Amino acid sequence: MNADASNASLVEIEHGAYGVPGVVRVTMNRPDAFNALSEALLDELHTALSEIGRSNARVVVIAGAGRAFCAGHDLKEMRAAPSLAYYQALFARCTKLMMTIQRLPQPVIARVQGIATAAGCQLVAMCDLAVAADTARFAVSGVNLGLFCATPSVPLSRNLSRKAALEMLLTGDFIDAAAAKQQGLVNRVVSADALDAEITRLATSICAKPVEAVSAGKGLFYRQLEMGIEAAYQLAGQTMACNMMDESALEGVQAFIDKRPPDWKRDAG
Amino acid sequence: MNADASNASLVEIEHGAYGVPGVVRVTMNRPDAFNALSEALLDELHTALSEIGRSNARVVVIAGAGRAFCAGHDLKEMRAAPSLAYYQALFARCTKLMMTIQRLPQPVIARVQGIATAAGCQLVAMCDLAVAADTARFAVSGVNLGLFCATPSVPLSRNLSRKAALEMLLTGDFIDAAAAKQQGLVNRVVSADALDAEITRLATSICAKPVEAVSAGKGLFYRQLEMGIEAAYQLAGQTMACNMMDESALEGVQAFIDKRPPDWKRDAG
Amino acid sequence: MNADASNASLVEIEHGAYGVPGVVRVTMNRPDAFNALSEALLDELHTALSEIGRSNARVVVIAGAGRAFCAGHDLKEMRAAPSLAYYQALFARCTKLMMTIQRLPQPVIARVQGIATAAGCQLVAMCDLAVAADTARFAVSGVNLGLFCATPSVPLSRNLSRKAALEMLLTGDFIDAAAAKQQGLVNRVVSADALDAEITRLATSICAKPVEAVSAGKGLFYRQLEMGIEAAYQLAGQTMACNMMDESALEGVQAFIDKRPPDWKRDAG
Repeated sequence: MNADASNASLVEIEHGAYGVPGVVRVTMNRPDAFNALSEALLDELHTALSEIGRSNARVVVIAGAGRAFCAGHDLKEMRAAPSLAYYQALFARCTKLMMTIQRLPQPVIARVQGIATAAGCQLVAMCDLAVAADTARFAVSGVNLGLFCATPSVPLSRNLSRKAALEMLLTGDFIDAAAAKQQGLVNRVVSADALDAEITRLATSICAKPVEAVSAGKGLFYRQLEMGIEAAYQLAGQTMACNMMDESALEGVQAFIDKRPPDWKRDAG
Repeated sequence: MNADASNASLVEIEHGAYGVPGVVRVTMNRPDAFNALSEALLDELHTALSEIGRSNARVVVIAGAGRAFCAGHDLKEMRAAPSLAYYQALFARCTKLMMTIQRLPQPVIARVQGIATAAGCQLVAMCDLAVAADTARFAVSGVNLGLFCATPSVPLSRNLSRKAALEMLLTGDFIDAAAAKQQGLVNRVVSADALDAEITRLATSICAKPVEAVSAGKGLFYRQLEMGIEAAYQLAGQTMACNMMDESALEGVQAFIDKRPPDWKRDAG
Repeated sequence: MNADASNASLVEIEHGAYGVPGVVRVTMNRPDAFNALSEALLDELHTALSEIGRSNARVVVIAGAGRAFCAGHDLKEMRAAPSLAYYQALFARCTKLMMTIQRLPQPVIARVQGIATAAGCQLVAMCDLAVAADTARFAVSGVNLGLFCATPSVPLSRNLSRKAALEMLLTGDFIDAAAAKQQGLVNRVVSADALDAEITRLATSICAKPVEAVSAGKGLFYRQLEMGIEAAYQLAGQTMACNMMDESALEGVQAFIDKRPPDWKRDAG
């Protein structure tokens, strides 16, 4: 935690990460604190993601420096000056970060190489996609300290079946990467050696798609999930009709008919 | 697509399919176009299903002629006269077909023997049940052409976990039949040789149940899914009380008590 | 069913079950009737759980005496005096029991050693957690008698994917314990011999957590599930801030910082 006092940045941002134009890697950089989400780190992450949201980046990768992905809130900081108002503000700040991920026009991929606990596990659940090393482990372990992971339960219960989510929340036990994949918390599990190659494959695939389709599609996906099926279809039909009028879609469909590759000229972050 | 201009029907309807009275098989019949959902096919399917909904058929099987199950919208037709109003009407027409499947009093089983892509994958997701050959493959591949599969995302995200659904929608990648079963998109996977036998088993099982229980039950299932749990229970309790007053339920329960087969006399399509 | 007429209790309650203070085991005790939920059993269960809810018990285990877990409603009783009003009242009474489980401040674990059918399967689905013997089997088999399991479909469809739930509801077929785990209906499957040891492990783990975190957390979990994600986060943030102000959480977090075990002095059932 001494690192925070120095001038070292808590968040490292790399454009064109993995050698892929359009991919931005955002690395939580408090390795000695297992990348615990101090207020400063929460704010830096929020600022970084907000700026990326306004950029022409195409895909965001969230990673953790060192051995852990993210160990949740910074407990020393949390315990220093306890008051209800402080905790309300702290969880509101954390929620703002989490909702920013969902609202970003770019897909966000969690790169999970180590433990992801409490708000760190929440971060994985909030990302659109997640790729984990087979050594990664996941827990919502606050209950072990007497603090039920209430805010992490929001995305966790929207990723896992309810009994699986409740088991994690009530026991605080870790699940391994294979269980996380089976239960819906991550998309892919590979060996630690292969993690960056797999992220690169996934990010490259998304970067190859027109930006209009991806950003409108991501937004629609989360909005329609909260609607009844008829309202969902109405919004989706409208979104898809607008998307079809984009130059990129008209060209993409025409190219398919012509059996040639589409001629898309785009900027990429 | 030349077939459309001929007098050949785009939809083949077979009552008493598989030798089971009450089973209707609806076959999309544009094999050279991978059963792409042209406007004419959408309309014929909608008309066919609406008529079946008013008949005494008990189970509907939706199948595709030839090598593909269904490759989604007819892209040539879609590209011919682009306008926002046209696309809005097209997706509304497709949605009407999809919602008809859910609203049909009969259970609808998708018989997936080949690729099911975009609106073809949506069709599988909208059916109440789905049986796939182990050679079947599934994708929501519009994003590859710059057109995010927005309307397919509606039932897909109500079948799969959200990360699995988003991965398919953002990458356009195929998943195989085993993954489709593991993720909740299909109920059963068998070898292509065994596909019709498995469909027959499933359809025969449902046909053996009283029609009142099946049709009221299917309707209740989807309505209660969109409610909070208390309202869901209230509607379900009312539905079940009414169902219990049906002659067929009173006889079924009495027969169970008497340890004899129920004496149900019913018509079957 | 003769047992009901005797003075023998339909529900056995054991405090400190499995040798763990705080664990209450509630055993449905109509083994000759496969623990069918007669009106009297429904009422005794409801009374027992309501009293436990007001006690300082920490975890509830629901078990069935004899070979079956629970075979659903008592069909002889149900068939005796058929009327719509009677059935409405019966299902309302059953729903009241089911909702009591969800509203209990204590986590409720289903201990499933044999068949769980119809409302018996519903009971498993409503419990917060479930551990099954590998010999357990699950069905919502009312449809076989002409009575669609409408009320069981409410929690079933909130545990399983929709196609898996509909398959069970429309066919009435059994699934085994392995499928129940894969599909989200139970948390863990062990050999019948190991069932009580596994329940003990799970209950002991939960009893070791402060009561405030567990009870507030369980309540929050179900409430936030019925909200949009933003409202869910708002409620979760508020719940977590209040939880953090509990003595037990402040001590738990401080102990973690100090690298010592927390000093929690609590009563346990």
